[in-house]
This record gives sequence, C-alpha cells and structure tokens, in this order.
Amino acid sequence: MIVAVCANAAIDVTYTVPVLLPGEAHRVAEVRERAGGKGINVARVLHQLGQDVTVCGFAGGAAGAAIIDDLQVSGIAQALTPIAGESRRAVAVVAQDQATVFNEQGPRISNEEWQQLVADVGAASLGAEVVVLSGSVPPGAPATGYAQLADLARRQGATVIVDADGDALGHALAAAPEIVKPNASEAAALLGRSVQTREDARDAGHALLRRGAHAAVVSRGPSGLVAVREGEAIEARLPRRVDGNPTGAGDALAAALARGLSSGATWREMLCDAAAISAAAVAEPVAGGFVQAVADELRPAIELEEF
Amino acid sequence: MIVAVCANAAIDVTYTVPVLLPGEAHRVAEVRERAGGKGINVARVLHQLGQDVTVCGFAGGAAGAAIIDDLQVSGIAQALTPIAGESRRAVAVVAQDQATVFNEQGPRISNEEWQQLVADVGAASLGAEVVVLSGSVPPGAPATGYAQLADLARRQGATVIVDADGDALGHALAAAPEIVKPNASEAAALLGRSVQTREDARDAGHALLRRGAHAAVVSRGPSGLVAVREGEAIEARLPRRVDGNPTGAGDALAAALARGLSSGATWREMLCDAAAISAAAVAEPVAGGFVQAVADELRPAIELEEF
Repeated sequence: MIVAVCANAAIDVTYTVPVLLPGEAHRVAEVRERAGGKGINVARVLHQLGQDVTVCGFAGGAAGAAIIDDLQVSGIAQALTPIAGESRRAVAVVAQDQATVFNEQGPRISNEEWQQLVADVGAASLGAEVVVLSGSVPPGAPATGYAQLADLARRQGATVIVDADGDALGHALAAAPEIVKPNASEAAALLGRSVQTREDARDAGHALLRRGAHAAVVSRGPSGLVAVREGEAIEARLPRRVDGNPTGAGDALAAALARGLSSGATWREMLCDAAAISAAAVAEPVAGGFVQAVADELRPAIELEEF
Repeated sequence: MIVAVCANAAIDVTYTVPVLLPGEAHRVAEVRERAGGKGINVARVLHQLGQDVTVCGFAGGAAGAAIIDDLQVSGIAQALTPIAGESRRAVAVVAQDQATVFNEQGPRISNEEWQQLVADVGAASLGAEVVVLSGSVPPGAPATGYAQLADLARRQGATVIVDADGDALGHALAAAPEIVKPNASEAAALLGRSVQTREDARDAGHALLRRGAHAAVVSRGPSGLVAVREGEAIEARLPRRVDGNPTGAGDALAAALARGLSSGATWREMLCDAAAISAAAVAEPVAGGFVQAVADELRPAIELEEF
C-alpha cells in the first residue's frame, strides 16, 4: 500500500470561455470541479496503475467537503485531516487551449492541526511500503514538517519519496529520504546553481545526496530525466517529444517511482517506467492521469545511459 | 417591510493579483467572498438605508450555505428557497484596478423548486409594502416567472419594482408593475431601438408604459436618469460626475425607489434620492453599498427638469 500526502489539497475549478478579455465580464457556460493538488494527482496516477493508495492531507470547509466527495467518486481512499479553515481553490480559465490559473494560497494550519496530520499520516503509514510527500507545506505548518513526516514514515517501516521544492525539500533532505524528485529548475533554485545540461543535473543530484537523500531523480521535461545514486548516474531519454499539458507530469513521475519501490522493481525498470509514464501524462489533458497507450508505446523505447 | 427577490443569488469571489497575465499561473494572496447577485445588492443598500428587508431567492450546495452565512454576518434577513443544485459563483480577478469577471451560469431550477420560491415569496410578501424583482430568471424557471411573482406580490398588497432585462422584463410588463428600471442599453435591447439622448429615454419609457408598467425609470449612467409616468417625463441630472465602480449603481437605484415607495415619498423626492444614492454607489468600491457623504452632498444639488 502507498500513502500519498497532499498537504495542500485543493479543489481545481475549470472555467471554459471562448476568449479571455482582461477587464471584461465573461459568461461561464461550463464549470468543472475536481480534487487536485500534487499529492492527489500522485494518488490518481497510482489508482490508474491499479495500486492501493490512501491520500493524507488537510481538508476544511465547503471546498474540503468537495475534495472528499470527489475522491470518493474517483474511488480513491482518503484519511484527510479536518481543519477549521477553508481548503483552497485553484481556478483555471481555459480559452483557446490556453489556461490562465489562479491558485489560492490556502488556509493557515494551527499547531494542533499539524500534530493531527502527523498522527493521521502515522496511522495510514502502518503497513505501507511507500509514503510520497508532495507539494508545498501549507502556511502555519513547521518548515521542517516533511522531515518530521519522513522520519515517522520510516519508523513505521515505509520508504519515503519527497516531491517538493524550496525550504520544504531542503529540510526534508536531513531525514534521508529514499528518493527526492525535483525538476531541473527546482533543483537549481534549492542549490543556487544553474541546471541546464545532463551533467548539471548529475552534479545537482550528487549535491542532493550529500545533503541526505539516498537517490535523486532530476526531471528535465522533454529531455527526460537524470537519476543519481551513490557512485552512479543514469540518463533516461525519451524516443520522441510528447505534446500536450505538462502540468502533472512530475506527479506521474513520483507515482511511477512509488509503484517501483512498492513492487520491488529494479532501479533501471523503475526509471524506464517513470520516464514513460511521466511523458504519457503530458498526453493526458488534465493533471492526475496518463494515456496508457502512449506509456505502452514509449516504455520499450526509453534509452538508459550511464554517464 | 421590503422584499428583495434575488433569483440568481451568487457568491462573489474576489481575487487580487498584482497583474493579470493570460496563459500564466497566478498566486492569489487575497481572497474575499461575499453574497452577491443583483437582489442581494438591493437588500444591502436597503439595509444601509435602515430599511427592514428580507431576501428571497434560491440557495443550494456549499455556495448556497456560504450565501446564507454571509447574509447572517451582514445582518440581513433571508427566506431563501433551498435547491438541489449548487448556487453559482462569480469570480472577479482584480489587477491594477481592473476587474476581469467570470460569471457561472448557475444551477438549473426544477419546476418544484420554482413553485416553492413562489410560495416563499408569497409568504414573505404578506405585510410588505414593496417587492423588488432583480436580475435574471435562472435556467429552468418559467420565462413568465417575474410576471407570476409580480401578480402574487400585488395580491398580497405590495407594490412591485422590476429591475430585469430581456425576456424576464418583457414578460413582467404584462403584470403591470409599479416601476420598471432598465438602464438605457437594456431598454434599447428590449424595445429594439437606440436609446442615446434623454428624448430617446423618454420615448422608451412611454413604450414601456404602453406595454404595462405604471412608471419607468431609465438610468443613463453619469447623465442621470429619465423617469416617465402617464403624461409626464422628468430628467434628474447629477451636479458632477462621480468616479469609481459603476457595478451596483443600478441596484442602489432600485433600492432607493423601493424605499421611496415604501415610505410614501413624493415622486420628485424619490427621483432625487434615487439619482443621489445611485451615484453615491459608484463611489463605493464594491457593489451593494453607497458612500453616505457623497449621497448627502449630491442630494440637494440634483436638478429635476420636466421635458
């Protein structure tokens, strides 16, 4: 079983309009709502992969109730922690295939609510093989929150994947997670260096290992990914470019790695899967899913090269 | 007592961002929510004027619960009719003093829900002096809905003001409301003629009287308003232009007319009040209120001219 922690769960609202005219009023004929946030996207991909997954995180108010309802409709188990505040919304205005997104910051978490999340993640992690920590830590939560959750998950016997950036990732490294999975620009921002080439990504990966991670997977968009373990760096290259919506490709990558750790796949198998499923997520119009046929096509053609 | 019918009540959500960039993701630091819709704006202005007012209309789902909560916080009485659907949201993105608005269409109303609204408006109207019908009739409601409510209100002993446009206004005229209050462009659209000058507005007013209204007040933005009764047309002119947010100025006008009818003011007193309060609503940043000092300053300087 896999636990996907989504500390900043949201309701993703999509408004479709013919054209976006700043300063004008728009009639919105079509409104779609679904539970979102990086950890929930990870859980959706794991659910699509047939994995047993439970979502942890915070849910409050009317938006929180809508998150819980939508997860139930999607058939995804949850052990969300109730909070006094209102869960955030993320409104995407789609016009002429272009999305303009407004992300609410989300509610401030009290110390008691954070402690309850820790308890709930601890309970959910018992018997889990893998715990994935995704996205930002909400306002009010401790900066070291992911380190705390990673320590706890490991004590419960689970391995930990961290897909975060900034301070949340920086602090999490101290808890020695099994895998960290920044993209190139997140790695660059954390380490204060440029990450453009595969060699840059390899050096960034080694730097993340020196700071505590057992392995680092640095995603490079259409260029594939670079995976670094002690004394080894592997590049996974895609056979072709996939067009579509890259939002959620990183979440699909985290999900594929979680499945790999959970099922005892080899490192190379995991990297091929992760590269294929992440690219197949680009072909899926919304975050939190992938196109199976694209993954099946790409998977055997992924090139791995140690360098 | 005054009843404000808001058949299309909404939660108005305001996102403030530094700059609106189509195609980009925006972090929204500040989110404000309040109950909105034309009828609720009318009720807010009446409440500010110290009038006893009750809001009728539809409320459903999480957004409906938020509407009810916010009216309670505002101290405004309501007799909203529960519905199965989710009340609509209206999202305004404010950047550099410019608002880009996304209006959800709102839920489809069943026949049973419409009949329940009729019963609830009937109950609320007992003992009311004035019933104001504002805004659009929601999807699923009968096109003749406002005529039905106007007939009912009159049978309960109330006089009726209709502030609607299109078909809803057209059908309502047959029920002989005391006052209809289109703006110039709404009058033009209904009557299929240009309404630019005060003479155009007077002619439009007479046409609305021929179709059933006892009086018509055609608002002309910064140019003031033209009020037409049988055999009489009066222009009310503002002493100066008021800058600000014109959204809600029409609702403030309807509220001022409702107070005038309710308190037995003379026609000329009502028109001076209505012109002053409507202009003072432009000075208020959000719809559903007016700046008292601006109303006090303008009121004695409104010029009325019969023409």
